[in-house]
Amino acid sequence: MRIESVDFFYLSMPEITLEADGSQDALLVRATGGGFEGWGECEASPLVSIAAFVTPRSHGVCQPVAASVLGQTLDEPADIRRIAALVERNSMDLLQAAHTFSGVEMALWDLLGKARGEPVWKLLGYDRAYGKSPYASLLFGDTAQETLEAGKAAVARGFRAIKFGWAGFGEGSVDRDAEHLHAAREGLGPDGHLLVDAGQIWVEDVEAAAARIPALEAVRATWLEEPFQASAYGAYGQLAKRSGTVKLAGGEGAHNVHMAKHLIDFGGVGFIQIDCGRIGGIAAAKAVADYAVGQGVAYVNHTFTSHLALSASLQPFAGLRDSRICEYPAAPKALAVDITREHLLPDGNGEVHVPDAPGLGMTVDLDRLKPYQRSVEIRVADQLLYSSPVIS
Amino acid sequence: MRIESVDFFYLSMPEITLEADGSQDALLVRATGGGFEGWGECEASPLVSIAAFVTPRSHGVCQPVAASVLGQTLDEPADIRRIAALVERNSMDLLQAAHTFSGVEMALWDLLGKARGEPVWKLLGYDRAYGKSPYASLLFGDTAQETLEAGKAAVARGFRAIKFGWAGFGEGSVDRDAEHLHAAREGLGPDGHLLVDAGQIWVEDVEAAAARIPALEAVRATWLEEPFQASAYGAYGQLAKRSGTVKLAGGEGAHNVHMAKHLIDFGGVGFIQIDCGRIGGIAAAKAVADYAVGQGVAYVNHTFTSHLALSASLQPFAGLRDSRICEYPAAPKALAVDITREHLLPDGNGEVHVPDAPGLGMTVDLDRLKPYQRSVEIRVADQLLYSSPVIS
Repeated sequence: MRIESVDFFYLSMPEITLEADGSQDALLVRATGGGFEGWGECEASPLVSIAAFVTPRSHGVCQPVAASVLGQTLDEPADIRRIAALVERNSMDLLQAAHTFSGVEMALWDLLGKARGEPVWKLLGYDRAYGKSPYASLLFGDTAQETLEAGKAAVARGFRAIKFGWAGFGEGSVDRDAEHLHAAREGLGPDGHLLVDAGQIWVEDVEAAAARIPALEAVRATWLEEPFQASAYGAYGQLAKRSGTVKLAGGEGAHNVHMAKHLIDFGGVGFIQIDCGRIGGIAAAKAVADYAVGQGVAYVNHTFTSHLALSASLQPFAGLRDSRICEYPAAPKALAVDITREHLLPDGNGEVHVPDAPGLGMTVDLDRLKPYQRSVEIRVADQLLYSSPVIS
Repeated sequence: MRIESVDFFYLSMPEITLEADGSQDALLVRATGGGFEGWGECEASPLVSIAAFVTPRSHGVCQPVAASVLGQTLDEPADIRRIAALVERNSMDLLQAAHTFSGVEMALWDLLGKARGEPVWKLLGYDRAYGKSPYASLLFGDTAQETLEAGKAAVARGFRAIKFGWAGFGEGSVDRDAEHLHAAREGLGPDGHLLVDAGQIWVEDVEAAAARIPALEAVRATWLEEPFQASAYGAYGQLAKRSGTVKLAGGEGAHNVHMAKHLIDFGGVGFIQIDCGRIGGIAAAKAVADYAVGQGVAYVNHTFTSHLALSASLQPFAGLRDSRICEYPAAPKALAVDITREHLLPDGNGEVHVPDAPGLGMTVDLDRLKPYQRSVEIRVADQLLYSSPVIS
């Protein structure tokens, strides 16, 4: 088939706060071809990502993403990798292109899977899919007591692993952070996996990060995530040598496969966390998963938004038996819940399963999304370059 | 003073070809405060970069660039670094932010320099500025004969160093490339610096790049630039060990200081090439220059557009005596020429000098740019988010 159209739906909660909560808006992507449609989601600024698809070209290697996608043949997985290479070449100098293409690429896998009647993880070469143990992704509370209660509430919902992050962690005193860490462990109970996300707060200050290691070890944290700026491999590498029983985790900021490999090779992370909505899509994420396996590093998805993004993010490591933990958006905004009709709920063993259905196995309910849509209109030199599709 | 306004001017030639010629369009930035105005230029997709300045926020660390710039205090160089850190934090998940901020940051230095009556290079801490030997940046010809003639024409204009690149180099046979390389050397004559730019053509294929080394050595090329994708440090590092008398050069794709340092540390480049219009501006480029000096690596600007961009790109290494070569846009489109009233022409010794005048020392001639302007209008949810300033 040929890729006939690619549409974007910019969806948003009525109010966007300054929380580090990526589920407050969404950029859905719909691709059509051969009578089928596929869906994807960019984990990125919606307006800027749309602009990168439709912008006039600046020169031969600063072309809009659309130039490498629309009208292309799509019959097999190799076509998606070919299109990705085209985007990388033709949009080399368009920084936002990787974020835009990530959602488009997902939609192409979904489209191809639907046309072929196969789940994406089978198209990626896996024979079977393993269940994953979800961890609840939560923000730290304003007080240690709130952190404790949030932990208890997640346990009551069945979670046996929790990640706490952001919301001031690392910005105040070491003692304050230790207090929250002990509260988190108390809320989770003695047995569960406790994961901690610093959200790049120390930029590249190794000493500031190292000062938190004793408390992290005391509460038996499994990992310390994103202590530093996404590309600060030197700082990662230094901290990795001083982090004792606590492994480093990172990778959500990777917008290409190289960056993720560097974090493994130079940064010494024990867990590589990939967001399919940023790294260039599902095939790019699969390439990282393959590399991680060879290096003895565990692959983990990064997903904070919808169950469409969750399904996409489970595909690249569905068949990896030893990468058992998956991020699970535990407190998303209503918008993120409403994006799909189906939801990937934990089974009786507390495990989450990638859908065994064509494509990504999710149905997008456009009617339900109408109230969330923010229509976009872009004109350049008085020509209408982009206008959001109307949900009828 | 306070930063009162930031405006963008999207300028374009009437037709944009698929040449790898970044001077076909431009995004000028004007910042005002305290009765002064400063100018900068993003080397980036204009529409997408504007969108990154004005987009609605997605969450706390996916905010528009404007949120970290407008209304900020600007009285000394430290303010610009503080604002840059704000952008890095608040726009962490907005990929295009670095490209947008690069032009804004330049405009802030120009503004500060004008307000203080000092050239930017002095504000950066240099006591004196050294002349630089410009090389002409040219595209290879379609035929070897055209390459030869282009070389001769540049020599006739006084250039003693030429860089040839793109236009099919590396895409065909090794013999075809060798033919062009010999033609280039013949056109330049036996003594000049011959530089070669592969434009990432081999992605990360070390063997394909290594196959061209004998011809590059035969014509005594000073450097081989961008053999690989900007982040393929592993491939760079491997080729660096096999490149004989030819040094590797790269860095124009760096959109933060980390990436440039990695290319030095892991990629083994002998020349680090920084585009102030992409890396986050002049202070980011200066940080790379400082690091390069310590590692025995030569700093070179990457500039293919206007003399505003050229002035900005000379500031970060103006005071480095040992970094002597500068890229010089030798065949820019009319638009790039028309952006500034002044032009940095080589002196009697063939050297180019950074202006010894307040700020960047260049005057933007808006009236002359009117025919090039492409007006942009962006609406989200029926609200006008952005409308280009009218050149009156």
